[in-house]
Amino acid sequence: MCIRIGIMGYGNLGRGIECAIKQNSDLELKAVFTRRAPESVKILTEGVKVYKAEDAIKMKDEIDVLILCGGSATDLPKQTPEYAKYFNVVDSFDTHAKIPEHFAAVDAAAKISGKVAVISSGWDPGMFSLNRLYAEAVLSDGKDYTFWGKGVSQGHSDAIRRIDGVLDAKQYTIPIDTALEAVRSGKNPSLTTREKHLRECFVVAKEGADKERIENEIKTMPNYFADYDTIVHFISLEELKENHSGIPHGGFVIRSGKTGWEKENTHIIEYSLKLDSNPEFTSSVIVAYARAAYRLNKEGVFGCKTVFDIAPAYLSSMSPEEMRAKLL
Amino acid sequence: MCIRIGIMGYGNLGRGIECAIKQNSDLELKAVFTRRAPESVKILTEGVKVYKAEDAIKMKDEIDVLILCGGSATDLPKQTPEYAKYFNVVDSFDTHAKIPEHFAAVDAAAKISGKVAVISSGWDPGMFSLNRLYAEAVLSDGKDYTFWGKGVSQGHSDAIRRIDGVLDAKQYTIPIDTALEAVRSGKNPSLTTREKHLRECFVVAKEGADKERIENEIKTMPNYFADYDTIVHFISLEELKENHSGIPHGGFVIRSGKTGWEKENTHIIEYSLKLDSNPEFTSSVIVAYARAAYRLNKEGVFGCKTVFDIAPAYLSSMSPEEMRAKLL
Repeated sequence: MCIRIGIMGYGNLGRGIECAIKQNSDLELKAVFTRRAPESVKILTEGVKVYKAEDAIKMKDEIDVLILCGGSATDLPKQTPEYAKYFNVVDSFDTHAKIPEHFAAVDAAAKISGKVAVISSGWDPGMFSLNRLYAEAVLSDGKDYTFWGKGVSQGHSDAIRRIDGVLDAKQYTIPIDTALEAVRSGKNPSLTTREKHLRECFVVAKEGADKERIENEIKTMPNYFADYDTIVHFISLEELKENHSGIPHGGFVIRSGKTGWEKENTHIIEYSLKLDSNPEFTSSVIVAYARAAYRLNKEGVFGCKTVFDIAPAYLSSMSPEEMRAKLL
Repeated sequence: MCIRIGIMGYGNLGRGIECAIKQNSDLELKAVFTRRAPESVKILTEGVKVYKAEDAIKMKDEIDVLILCGGSATDLPKQTPEYAKYFNVVDSFDTHAKIPEHFAAVDAAAKISGKVAVISSGWDPGMFSLNRLYAEAVLSDGKDYTFWGKGVSQGHSDAIRRIDGVLDAKQYTIPIDTALEAVRSGKNPSLTTREKHLRECFVVAKEGADKERIENEIKTMPNYFADYDTIVHFISLEELKENHSGIPHGGFVIRSGKTGWEKENTHIIEYSLKLDSNPEFTSSVIVAYARAAYRLNKEGVFGCKTVFDIAPAYLSSMSPEEMRAKLL
């Protein structure tokens, strides 16, 4: 019997989840829930219905894991504790600074319901976090670095779009090669924000807009751009659509550390991702953790869990024997 | 109170474990056991004694985890099931093909004693296995590749030393760049043994030995060299000692996989290690799993475990709260 999955929210991430379910024969899409009018939402999977978000709870006995595809700013802080009262859930809450309070709220709900709630799965937080943890545990005397990109930052693209005179924009976060090389050399450099990443923007200006002012507003925008070297290109809407419609991303987690009686030896651990589609890769991670959530709950486990709390074997569809024979 | 560690066997690995314990303030070296005459074994840690191997069992109540540093060919198949009767143990059994039978023997012993026995920790098997598993679970439709090196293969170096006329030798396994690049491109190439790695040998010949014959014997040696492109350099003993006395190693685990409704997107996950000292890095991994073994057993867990069965949080000395705040 398949693990029955529900998807709450059908944007890029929800669609990615739907695709990932198709790739895993032990998972089955049971229902999609939306805050929009259900009849206006067209999904890819034949024979699966779209329901109103408020109908989800009625279907609690037909769904093994509900995957929450809302945003971290306002949706998930409410949705994850709420739905953890009724379902095993997985979210991709990614506001790093607020993870402790999100964990506490979700844990309280899941402890009462006896369900498993996995928060902050995806790639950062998620696979990158795992790599930071494993590397730190192994090389206790060391330093780790996370670089993001080359990839599209939705938040930075949105920030540019809000500038007066901007029709559309895409922003790429790009790790700086010399910084990556310095880290890989094992020198444990101290790197400023500006030394780690640069920001490249492709901007479509409205007819007659003052491009010089727009460029200046971008480059001096606090938090988003002021601390970085920023490159701004003005391009046509056609060019933006043709060359910048993808959502690629990726990055690097690198730790260098010392071992030996006198710390005479240096080791470099590097993990990197190069992703054609950020939401689809995130979805692939989430779906593996949905499998884990279901299995853990079957074993009587409950409460809020992160990627740190879940043994890797729970993620794979292979049996323990097969894993040991093929992957160990 | 510290976790009290015993070391069984004091070669390169045992010494690496000793160094790793020094770097982790929650661990304490309690005793070293050897098959040699204890008084002939000088260790680095002041105030810690060296005992005969057969005295280990008498000390079972003074040691929380016994780390087994023997070889996989003959030592560990006997030692791990034997000592798992009395101790939580960790080994680095690395004969991939025999892991299933080793697991079964160790599991039977540890289930009776109620202890935790972690087998096959280190980096391959170990960290590389974890990365194969995580990558396979996330990108179910893909292919993974493991490359080793650049690094010293002890087995291949030994094989050269057994050739008549050879005084000493060091062999480096080197991944071939074009193969790495083909894999990173996401093309999922089929690669032969010869296309993945080359072997570079530094050989010291005895006075008057026939170098041409030695080179030929190396290059045609079945299993070890015949299937590879092999480069042989004859050098002096001084040169070997000066330039080839280290034990560096490393490698790459790369998986590329597809996502999307029509598999239209490609993703590359890459994990790599660059290690100055193979035994010291292996030791650092083992020691983290010793911490995990102790904690799991405290929680009432027992039996044989691999890296797949252990949640990452057990490896770190950080508290769950600290981990979530700093690493997630």
